[in-house]
Amino acid sequence: MPGSLKRRPLIFNLFMMDTGHHEASWRLPGSYPLANLDIEYFEKLARLAESVTFDSVFLADHPSLEGGGRRPSGRIEPLTLLTAVARATTRIGLIATASTSYNDPYNLARKFASLDLVSGGRAGWNIVTTAGDASARNFGLDSQPSHLERYQRADEFVAVARKLWDSWEDDAVVADPSSGVWSDDAKIHAIDHHGRFFDVRGPMNLPRTPQGHPVLVQAGSSEDGRDFAARHAEAVFTAQQTLADGQAFYADLKRRAKLAGRDPGLVKILPGLVPVIGSTEAEARDLDDQLDQLILAESARDRLARRFGLSPEQLPLDAPLPSDLPTEDDIEGAKSRYTLIVELGRREQLTVRQLIGRLGGGRGHRTFAGTPEQVAATIEEWAAQGAADGFNVMPAALPSGFEAFAEHVVPILRSRGLIRSEYAGTTLREHYGLPRPASQYAPVPEGALA
Amino acid sequence: MPGSLKRRPLIFNLFMMDTGHHEASWRLPGSYPLANLDIEYFEKLARLAESVTFDSVFLADHPSLEGGGRRPSGRIEPLTLLTAVARATTRIGLIATASTSYNDPYNLARKFASLDLVSGGRAGWNIVTTAGDASARNFGLDSQPSHLERYQRADEFVAVARKLWDSWEDDAVVADPSSGVWSDDAKIHAIDHHGRFFDVRGPMNLPRTPQGHPVLVQAGSSEDGRDFAARHAEAVFTAQQTLADGQAFYADLKRRAKLAGRDPGLVKILPGLVPVIGSTEAEARDLDDQLDQLILAESARDRLARRFGLSPEQLPLDAPLPSDLPTEDDIEGAKSRYTLIVELGRREQLTVRQLIGRLGGGRGHRTFAGTPEQVAATIEEWAAQGAADGFNVMPAALPSGFEAFAEHVVPILRSRGLIRSEYAGTTLREHYGLPRPASQYAPVPEGALA
Repeated sequence: MPGSLKRRPLIFNLFMMDTGHHEASWRLPGSYPLANLDIEYFEKLARLAESVTFDSVFLADHPSLEGGGRRPSGRIEPLTLLTAVARATTRIGLIATASTSYNDPYNLARKFASLDLVSGGRAGWNIVTTAGDASARNFGLDSQPSHLERYQRADEFVAVARKLWDSWEDDAVVADPSSGVWSDDAKIHAIDHHGRFFDVRGPMNLPRTPQGHPVLVQAGSSEDGRDFAARHAEAVFTAQQTLADGQAFYADLKRRAKLAGRDPGLVKILPGLVPVIGSTEAEARDLDDQLDQLILAESARDRLARRFGLSPEQLPLDAPLPSDLPTEDDIEGAKSRYTLIVELGRREQLTVRQLIGRLGGGRGHRTFAGTPEQVAATIEEWAAQGAADGFNVMPAALPSGFEAFAEHVVPILRSRGLIRSEYAGTTLREHYGLPRPASQYAPVPEGALA
Repeated sequence: MPGSLKRRPLIFNLFMMDTGHHEASWRLPGSYPLANLDIEYFEKLARLAESVTFDSVFLADHPSLEGGGRRPSGRIEPLTLLTAVARATTRIGLIATASTSYNDPYNLARKFASLDLVSGGRAGWNIVTTAGDASARNFGLDSQPSHLERYQRADEFVAVARKLWDSWEDDAVVADPSSGVWSDDAKIHAIDHHGRFFDVRGPMNLPRTPQGHPVLVQAGSSEDGRDFAARHAEAVFTAQQTLADGQAFYADLKRRAKLAGRDPGLVKILPGLVPVIGSTEAEARDLDDQLDQLILAESARDRLARRFGLSPEQLPLDAPLPSDLPTEDDIEGAKSRYTLIVELGRREQLTVRQLIGRLGGGRGHRTFAGTPEQVAATIEEWAAQGAADGFNVMPAALPSGFEAFAEHVVPILRSRGLIRSEYAGTTLREHYGLPRPASQYAPVPEGALA
């Protein structure tokens, strides 16, 4: 199988979810239930990821309170958190989630430019449209805009942000004390954007940053989401349960990127993987079971019912999913995640209680319980079989699950050339194998018009 | 005079303006013209301020590009910058400017809560309404809202932010793994705010932070600005040129605070002071002259003309100010700064060129060139004579001017008990002598109703 592998090492991202991706992880003996509020915890976790040459760390986000009282809630704002992490590390990439529905492009583009600057070129932006009415109600709306409208706004938002990031040409800063010229204003451009959602004059109030602009990441897998990713994303976080689904998604997104006129090799596909690691397969499964048993089933069922637009009584814990659930078209929230959950329940004929256990493990991402060898093998298989350019590693319990990954899985991956041994570059773009984009305002080099 | 001093040391804030407050400071021999883009520069400067037990550091801000090509422009977003500084220091307070006109309360309140959390209770917010059309045009407007409208929005913005910061009672986090209860939802409150400018449901997605909320700072000295400060501000940055004006402002703001039902002692007045320090008075004046001579007079005149609503030709460099300038009522921008500049020019019968030199020193703040003894003496005088609770120290050149202040002025201040010798507390509130506010949603303690 090694012969079929690309020569380039895979991409590895650590999704830093406080005590872990399993919703009951905070209840494990020895866990740290206040991890979500402790900046030193995240700094330490990121340094561990950097010590095993991961490409990046990542934070999810919603601008509203989630989770009720049954699991750690409260989230340090991701750009703030990653700024601290930037200064506690030197190489690892820093990917923050931020919403196009509930931000202004000028402020957000500036924040990402600032993170790129203070981190020396390590910023990434996971572009989300933010499903759910709870966030909408924190920003003057009664309910969320439609799925389509959110994506239309996201499209224009990204276009504005890119113009702002490009608004200073790379050589606009002169900084010559003798003449008194600090910047060449002919190389700093108003963007004069006028669109359906935004009117923004510009220019940005920061020079162009080390990466030109942050690495653009996307995670929605609906039709709208895939088309958006094909147009804009340089990396895609995704959630498939089976190798076949993973291959289909991979092929589909690369095809869409090509149709959008882009090099499919510059759209990196990173499926989520929730490793539960034991020294034997039985030990791994025991840990997984222990986690599932710590879930408070009733409150998890209430959340699932809300996602389905049902009352809790319509979802008995020990019965299979009802046959008359809404279709994806009826859902204005996270469409592709909805379908994934329904299909998982039906395909494996799970009761609601069993489904909750599966979802508790990683919110619909693929949980894999096994030995370090088995974890490394599934990583190798998905990459070799055309389902992944790398992985979004989402340990069920943190930091323990990532410590196990770093100590026991990484050496196996390294011996097979699947993860780098040292950083070759200093920016996230360099780690991911993405070029630094030219400014759209830069003069076209002579000869390039031929 | 020591007998007339308050026993408490004064408050000292360092205004961290890249190469200094004098607009030509970046052109001085040995200056660092790219300081504004270098996070390590700010970390080092803040550490120096912390080493001499300053209370806080501060950053101004505009969400638009300022300054043209003639001085360092481009500003790292202040909350990003101060997050890095927070992690490079342990005690000093961190005050960021942010606009109520061009932010959403949910996002901004969350960012300040995040900074307060990651700094261990050291955040302060300089609340500005942001004058100028350049910023408005980055946020979908053709021109800035009126001065009154900006302040009305600021009032409601602060009310919403305070509700969000209060939305978790202090003991809402339970974090009990055995019961599976992480937070007591009865102690987390939707704010259900519905007003003229904002509809925000809440709650905040972070628990209450170390300070309850950041220290609220304000800097506008117009009528609207003073009333706003009287209602909300816990510290006020101000700009008076003479002791008499400083005393009048101090008395006026304390009176307004009392009328607003607040304890005037909890509104700290911090005039700006631009020290230019020499080992002799002549040496200090030479440094000041050297700086003024580095100003590019024509481009400074153009900016002054814009502020006055005139064309550059209407402001000959070697003539006094025209007699028919607009009144403050006609100005929609920074009203009090406008009046201060006009009065300075007329009171001292300055030519436009001379006025530009004075303004170049600190944008209308009080420049004081002298020996360390003289600088310490003017600090002592203003405090003893009822014009200041402390100072916003704005060195003309940085870091050199602050290094001189730290090395030569601080020891004199310390020997007179005017600056503390060590930090007594860990939060900015403790440094400034401000109490931690109770949450407005917390139950009233028994007996408090009597």
